[in-house]
This record gives sequence, C-alpha cells and structure tokens, in this order.
Amino acid sequence: MVICMKDDVVTFTQITPASLAHTAASWTFETVPLQLGGSFGPVTLAYETWGRLNSAGDNAILLTHALTGSAHAHDVERPDDPRAAWWNPLIGPGRPFDTERYFVICSNVLGGCYGSTGPSSPDPVTGRPYGLRFPLVTIRDMVNAQRKLIEHLGVRELAMVAGGSVGGQQALEWAVSYPELVRKVVVVAATAALTAQAVAFNEVGRQAIMADPRWQRGDYLPGQGPDAGLAIARMLAMITYQSEEAMEMRFARRPARRPDIVAPSGYAAFGGPFDVEGYLYHQGNALVRRFDANSYLYISRAMDLYDVSDGHASLEAALRRIQSQALFIGIRSDFLFPAARVRWLAEQVRQVGGAASYVELDSPHGHDAFLKEWDQMTAALQLIKD
Amino acid sequence: MVICMKDDVVTFTQITPASLAHTAASWTFETVPLQLGGSFGPVTLAYETWGRLNSAGDNAILLTHALTGSAHAHDVERPDDPRAAWWNPLIGPGRPFDTERYFVICSNVLGGCYGSTGPSSPDPVTGRPYGLRFPLVTIRDMVNAQRKLIEHLGVRELAMVAGGSVGGQQALEWAVSYPELVRKVVVVAATAALTAQAVAFNEVGRQAIMADPRWQRGDYLPGQGPDAGLAIARMLAMITYQSEEAMEMRFARRPARRPDIVAPSGYAAFGGPFDVEGYLYHQGNALVRRFDANSYLYISRAMDLYDVSDGHASLEAALRRIQSQALFIGIRSDFLFPAARVRWLAEQVRQVGGAASYVELDSPHGHDAFLKEWDQMTAALQLIKD
Repeated sequence: MVICMKDDVVTFTQITPASLAHTAASWTFETVPLQLGGSFGPVTLAYETWGRLNSAGDNAILLTHALTGSAHAHDVERPDDPRAAWWNPLIGPGRPFDTERYFVICSNVLGGCYGSTGPSSPDPVTGRPYGLRFPLVTIRDMVNAQRKLIEHLGVRELAMVAGGSVGGQQALEWAVSYPELVRKVVVVAATAALTAQAVAFNEVGRQAIMADPRWQRGDYLPGQGPDAGLAIARMLAMITYQSEEAMEMRFARRPARRPDIVAPSGYAAFGGPFDVEGYLYHQGNALVRRFDANSYLYISRAMDLYDVSDGHASLEAALRRIQSQALFIGIRSDFLFPAARVRWLAEQVRQVGGAASYVELDSPHGHDAFLKEWDQMTAALQLIKD
Repeated sequence: MVICMKDDVVTFTQITPASLAHTAASWTFETVPLQLGGSFGPVTLAYETWGRLNSAGDNAILLTHALTGSAHAHDVERPDDPRAAWWNPLIGPGRPFDTERYFVICSNVLGGCYGSTGPSSPDPVTGRPYGLRFPLVTIRDMVNAQRKLIEHLGVRELAMVAGGSVGGQQALEWAVSYPELVRKVVVVAATAALTAQAVAFNEVGRQAIMADPRWQRGDYLPGQGPDAGLAIARMLAMITYQSEEAMEMRFARRPARRPDIVAPSGYAAFGGPFDVEGYLYHQGNALVRRFDANSYLYISRAMDLYDVSDGHASLEAALRRIQSQALFIGIRSDFLFPAARVRWLAEQVRQVGGAASYVELDSPHGHDAFLKEWDQMTAALQLIKD
C-alpha cells in the first residue's frame, strides 16, 4: 500500500525541483528476522521521503528517529518551524540533509505507533491489537526492517545514516551490521550501550505504565490505555532529556504559570505546583494524546537492550566492521548518554582503524540538545559533508 | 508517655558509663505553630537519646534525619553494624558524636511514620488516620517541634545540630531560626533550596503514589495503601540518591542476580531484568514494608518547599542570622544536592560574616555517601570538633 500526498505524484515530481519532492507512504512486507529468535510479519513501515533518488540509487540519506518520534522528520509546508517536525531545520535545500542533492528517507520504527507495525497494530489472527503478543524487538530488528524498506525504494547504497538517541543507536547499528551499504554515519547522543542509570530511569517509567490498572497486561483498547502511567513515564523521561542547568534556567523555583494543568494522577503537587511541575504535567498529558503506551514499553526496552557488541566477538570486533566515515556528536550536559561515553566510542572506532570524528555540542539543554541546537548541529554536520 | 528500653532505667543509668545511657521514648505536647498558617496538635514526637545531659544542659547534640529516616540513628546493641541505624558508626564513645561527652538526641520528624505524629496517625476527631487532613508541614515546623522536645528534655543550648539531606535542611533551619541555641551546625548534602530538577524528580514519585488507585486520595487504611506507587517512587528516589558512576561500578549491564524479585507493578522488565532493575524492585518493595505513602508525600514536599530565605528579607538576611560555627559537607557525585551548591551556600555564609567551612566527600556514591562514607564523614566532622 502506497499513500501519496498528492493525487498525481508523477506530474508533481516532474515539474518541481527535487527539493520539493515529498512522499508520505507506507509499505508492507512479509517478514523480518528477529535478533532474539524467530521472525515476525507482516510488517508495515510508514515512511516519508524528501528529494529524489538518483539513477545510481546511491544518494539516499536515512534518518532514524528517537523513542517517541515518527517518520515526520521534515515538514515541507512549514520548513522553518522547528516544532513542525523533529529535524525540520536540518532538512531542505542547502541544509545539512540537502534535499536538492539527496533522497532523504525517514521511517517509523518497527514497534512504533505512527503507521508502522507495533503493539497497537491489529494482530491479523485476532483482529485485536497485538499488545504483549507483539515480539520483543531490538534496535537490530528495526534496522533490518529499514533495510528492507530502502531496498524496496531502490536504494543501493546509503550516502548517510543519521539519528540521535534511539535513532543514534540505529545509525550505529546500521554502520556495524551493513558496513558495505553505509558511506557515512552520524551517531548523535548515543553510546555503545546504555548505562545502568539510564536503564534504571527507563524501568521506573515502564513500571509506572504497567502499574496503571488500565494497562491490563497490555490488553487495553485504543483510548482506554494507561494514560496516567504513560504520562508519569513521560514526566520522568523529560527530566532525563534535559539537565539541571537547563531546568534551573527555565523554571528555577517559580510557581506554575498555568496552575490549571491537570496532573497525571489527577492530584497536583501539595501546596500548588512549581512551574517545572506544571510543565511536566503538560508534557506527560501531551504524550498520552499522541503515543501508545505499549510502544513506549517496547521501544524503551529496545533502547536498554542495545549493545553494539551483541553477536560479535567483542566490542572491538563489532566496531572494526564499520567502513563508514563516522561522526559522533555528544552533548556536554547529557546525562542519559554522557558525552564522555560518546567520545569514548568515537575513540574506540578510531583505535580499530575506523574514520571517526567526535564533536561535542556545548549546550545546557541536555540530551534534547540534538532537537534544539540547530546552529551547532548544522555546524557539526559540516564536518562530514562532501 | 515515656517508654524506656530497660525496666529500671535509673539504676541502669547510675551504674553504667554515660556512653551506654540510652532512651527510646516519645513525648506529646499540645500544639505547634505552622509556617503556612495556623497551628496543629496534639503532636507526639518519638525520639531516642544516647549519653547524658550535663547539669548546665548545654552538651546536647541534635541529629536530624533524612526523608525516610527515623529517630534510630544509633543502635547500642549493634554499634558496629552500619545497617542497624542510619548514622550508627558516627555515634558512640570516641566517635564524632561522642556519647561519653554529649547527650545525643534524634527525633522522628513531624509528619513522619516512626512514632511521631504524621498523616498515618489517628486523627483524635475521627479515630481514623489523618490522611490528607494532616496539614502541609514545612522544615521549619519540624524544627519548631524539635525545639519543644529539647526544651522538654532540659536542653538549654545545643552543642551541635547535624543532619544530611532533609536532615541537613533541618540543621540549616535550626541555625537560622534559633541562632542563640545552636553553637555548631553541620549541614550535609543540603542546599539553600532544591533545584527545579530535584523538585521534578520528587513530583514524579508523588504522582506515581497518587496515581495508584489504592491511594484513595490518601484515605487508605494501614496495609491497604498504594504499595506499587510508593515502590515506584522509591525506585526513582534510589536512582537520585546514587550516581551514574556508582551504579556502573555496582551493576553495569549484568542480568539480575535474583530474577525472582517481584517488580512493583507485578510485571518485570521485558526480556528479564537487569541487575540494577532487580535491585530497584527490592528497594521499592522494602520501603513499602517500612514506610507510609502519605508521610512520603508530606516529607518530600517539605523538602521541595524548603527555602532558607523564606520569611526573611533576603537569602543574605537569613544567613546573617547564623551565629553557629558551621560546617557544610558536599558530595562530589551528588546530583540531587549538587556539591557546587553546598559549597556556594558555605561561601554565602562566610560572605555575610559567618564562620563556615566546607568540605567535599570525594565519593562516587552520590547523595547517599553521607550514609556510607564513614571514614570520610568522620574525618570531615573532625573539622568542627572542640
């Protein structure tokens, strides 16, 4: 099934510059092997593309999204609005992911809830959402599904794979699993494997979801899910995506500017919320409106389970496979994926003979800086430009 | 009501050295004024004392406990077991809090659940636990209740007040509120006010408690409370009491050594828990067995609301009141009460003419180091010894 944004996509493509070509579609294939055993299918991947694939099929850039992201990395209608799509300011004519020269692809991950097959998709056997019958998928499984998609799209070699956070894990896995297919790789705010602390934060969020009686062991129906649990998980995650420094600048100890925002539990902080609390309630509630709780469980667990060395003799053996020119981007104030660990990973790649560079965003915005520091991200991406 | 540990406390006291004198008791008084308005009573405070008060009534040391602590700072039966009481190794003959020379007092805070009046105490009007009818108490209210207790015990001047975390906030408040009563003060891992990030972490924990349907707006009966919510709050808190470094050393990415530990939600992490997750489940479950969820809400909120400058013209005006010799102890790896902020507070006290010193524990153990680094704590406390 291919859904196009325009009725006559062919005509549209022919009369417009490549940079304006845009497709939002989905594609279904039979099966994907699973890292933890067996295979799974059918799999639908929702994706968007910008620009045009060249006849050699070698000018594609694959962008890989973070935990709650989607295929909507760029918005052609509002290309200058950073809030309209997750890497919007980095994509377009003359931008780092240049749609005049490249065919930019982004797909929603396997396990997601933005059009790709995930735990909220109907199980063809029962007609009901998979829920926990959905298999435990890994970053490698997501990459393998993406590989099928790019082949379907006619891509023979990826000019670049780039992503941040869980997207950075996917980019790294691409370079290790398919070195011959990836010319350049950009790993932003991601490491060889999560720290115990980061796993712990994720698990607290998941426990909040699974403790919500509406979770029903994952067997809730759409709109009847564990909203409070998911909102609490998001509140916590939003703290870990920022930094003490950024929260201090933004909120300090001010009282809530909007004390009317309903807290996930229905009960606001004793004595009335601080601004940071009102903000977190808002963020929690907002995620509930747009994201599936089971997808949150599955994708956050894939994030935890990811270890680039899995299935290889050692970390060195895994990294030695990388043939891509690699750029690692760390963030000074990131405590979920500490900059020192991103830098260390780049050094490991160099030590086994890889072409890796490292750049650090000097930002107070914590992990989320890769979705905020557009000038620094643009400057960093120059380092890997042709 | 006074409960003594020995049947014949008088004889016991006379034939034993001061250092072995020990009382575990509670005392009830009529009312305490509340910082946020009105007053509250009756108030019972559970307390323990070690050593003997001198005839001048000026050799008392008041120790103030942290969020889930109790009056049991020292265990005379097991004085060498650090797990038997929260500051056990620091208290006793020849130790920093020397029971041969000092009359050491520790009381459970107002709002607590270890014998002092708190939300789980029976409301004399209804006979049922107060629940949310318990007033919003502050650190200052806790200090004012303690003041009544020490007067009752015959203390005329405190040789020292010392505490860590929420206990450090109380110690600081003592020095500011009652400068004439406090000769020395030791503020460990506490700051002038919590950061937005620390407030945010606390509120996520509280939301987990209040979202638990067993919370019943605080009106649960003993043993029927929001166990899952409280355990999740504790899991999160335990992360914030440690550090990335400490968790990496202790857990890294090992699988759970005890995969049988039941997770708070009843559902363990997908794919089987990591060791850090099993540890957090255990910590969460353990708190449920020993602590009241409403007390957790009230005391953690008192922690958030604390700002040493409240009710004073400025921070400087508040700190200028301090007449005590002050020792501030920060912890290198503490991200809940960052060392830089503890040091800054010590500097502010000095800038307004106070006698403040600062020492930093070089520990990877995060906030909890004040309950673990016995040698460093002992060395630090030498700095304020006579």
